[in-house]
Amino acid sequence: MALPMRAHLKQIFRFIQKLNSPKRSFCAAVCLENKELPGGGRVFSGIQPTGVPHLGNYLGALENWVALQSRYPSVLYSIVDLHSITQPQDPKRLRSNILDMAASLLACGIDPEKAILFQQSQVSEHAELSWILGCLTSMPRLRHLPQWKMKSKQKNEGSVGLYTYPVLQAADILLYKSTHVPVGEDQVQHLELAQDLARIFNNRYGDLFPEPQALLSSTRKVKSLRDPSAKMSKSDPQAMATITITDSPEDIALKIRRAVTDFTSEVTYDPETRPGVSNLVTVHAAMATISVEEAVSQARGLDTGAYKNLVAESVIQRLTPIREEIERLRAEPGHLEALLARGTRRARELAAPVLKEVRQKVGFS
Amino acid sequence: MALPMRAHLKQIFRFIQKLNSPKRSFCAAVCLENKELPGGGRVFSGIQPTGVPHLGNYLGALENWVALQSRYPSVLYSIVDLHSITQPQDPKRLRSNILDMAASLLACGIDPEKAILFQQSQVSEHAELSWILGCLTSMPRLRHLPQWKMKSKQKNEGSVGLYTYPVLQAADILLYKSTHVPVGEDQVQHLELAQDLARIFNNRYGDLFPEPQALLSSTRKVKSLRDPSAKMSKSDPQAMATITITDSPEDIALKIRRAVTDFTSEVTYDPETRPGVSNLVTVHAAMATISVEEAVSQARGLDTGAYKNLVAESVIQRLTPIREEIERLRAEPGHLEALLARGTRRARELAAPVLKEVRQKVGFS
Repeated sequence: MALPMRAHLKQIFRFIQKLNSPKRSFCAAVCLENKELPGGGRVFSGIQPTGVPHLGNYLGALENWVALQSRYPSVLYSIVDLHSITQPQDPKRLRSNILDMAASLLACGIDPEKAILFQQSQVSEHAELSWILGCLTSMPRLRHLPQWKMKSKQKNEGSVGLYTYPVLQAADILLYKSTHVPVGEDQVQHLELAQDLARIFNNRYGDLFPEPQALLSSTRKVKSLRDPSAKMSKSDPQAMATITITDSPEDIALKIRRAVTDFTSEVTYDPETRPGVSNLVTVHAAMATISVEEAVSQARGLDTGAYKNLVAESVIQRLTPIREEIERLRAEPGHLEALLARGTRRARELAAPVLKEVRQKVGFS
Repeated sequence: MALPMRAHLKQIFRFIQKLNSPKRSFCAAVCLENKELPGGGRVFSGIQPTGVPHLGNYLGALENWVALQSRYPSVLYSIVDLHSITQPQDPKRLRSNILDMAASLLACGIDPEKAILFQQSQVSEHAELSWILGCLTSMPRLRHLPQWKMKSKQKNEGSVGLYTYPVLQAADILLYKSTHVPVGEDQVQHLELAQDLARIFNNRYGDLFPEPQALLSSTRKVKSLRDPSAKMSKSDPQAMATITITDSPEDIALKIRRAVTDFTSEVTYDPETRPGVSNLVTVHAAMATISVEEAVSQARGLDTGAYKNLVAESVIQRLTPIREEIERLRAEPGHLEALLARGTRRARELAAPVLKEVRQKVGFS
């Protein structure tokens, strides 16, 4: 069962990626719509507390999160701090990153009335379910998963936490009997583990968990402004490569002005041969909520230099209210903490009865 | 630091094992006394819910637990059901084994006024601290620990739970800032991991955990009645090999009558050359709370057949009130559950503030 499903999803991903941007958005939206169950469903997703997100996070995942919260009757978004410590973290920095991520999510449009926004480590049930699921997971099952393969090589030998990361992810999802999980291509194998563990648990102990389904999340990928062959990344050593959603208008304008393009002055959209300019078109279209064709047509008669001003303007216009809201929220950490505490309470209310059922089925109570 | 400590403990173990039984008991008691801190200390120990213990468990660990509860101001004994599921368990059987173990511990003399008796899975903090400590544990660190080496070979490849078992053990201990842990020789390496993790956590995040010290627990080892070269074991396929503490007087008498001895009819104590008879002397001395010399002198003039009656009598006399108490407790599962629930509350009261400190130090709050 596992391999065909993965192959199938990869095929869909590849197909979507070949489409041009508006068709891609449409296709992703159709995928989302089709996955919506008539009877409801529950969406779970998590994000590591890396502090303030960059433009790539915003367009790649957060916009999608905002859309999903109105489409599903029950939605949980978790700041997954237990996952973040699988790599060394400075405690003070981690704490402020958690609050910054919470502020950013709210400012980007996550509505705590529609989605339960909470901090993973405050709900101990995640770790307990992870232990139980770990007893149903064979050691070799984790050896080839992306998280371990990517990160343990860089550090030679990773921690037990890094190795068992996907088991905790499965627990995050199953703890709420989630039915739908937005995933990027790199997370498909991790979701498969969650599906396997739901099946294994149900087989051994009796039906409890739905098998969570993948929601193909937006495939819009923003590239580094300094090297359009690479993804935009928070850890990029070149400050000019990445626009953070709290960047000042001046910084945004400067970074886009310095963005790597090519020697053709006309603006066209062709990610294969003109990745730099095409990346700007992608950003422009997304920020102005227009199609790529419209963006290109607005660029008619402009050289790339002049077009960069237009792109910068669209980014500044979209990010300014977000930046201001983040600043407002940061100034009130007490309010933010109270919001997260409320999210924790609501998450626990859902998690506790599920863990109670788990304990009964396993024979603990 | 790690290796010399282990070597040192192994040396002490070997030295004690060469002594005869009363000297051994004395020596173990001295070890216990010496380890007792003037200012107090907290003892933690766990036992898997294997149901009703056998005579080997009783004399090997439980008698020692009963002694420790009066020697230390704070003592926690946990029925470690999260550990037990690292091997497949039947849920109904597991549930009844948990209650049987609780009843047995109480009947053997664990006093819930002196020691907090609780069920591990009811305190989610164990699993959460285990996750955090797992992020400080390198994968190779666990590869050579006894739990994995012994059990994964039998099953070819074990579960993630079996591999990470010693990390949960470390969490069990550190969650209560325990200072002392009774250990058998096979657990020394696991305790070393707990000590290492206390040090690693303290170094990285600031002082929090005391380094837990080993209490050399009773080295009295009861052998199989059918094969005195092997330990008495619950999983022995020969029913006649093992005395369970709820065995009827008739069963006890029968099992001891059938115990393997040798062709010499005189009773002497020499575990090397006469393991069968010596095992009976060990059991007799322990059950009658007399020295081995006294046991041998009581056997003077008796052949091994007649001596077996004496041994059986001592076992029956000691176990009858325990059996009756277990039966009484089993008849009141509600009372037992209430007792465990009270233990859980008390354990949580100690665990919650420690986990709160952990979360603050790590940067979660």
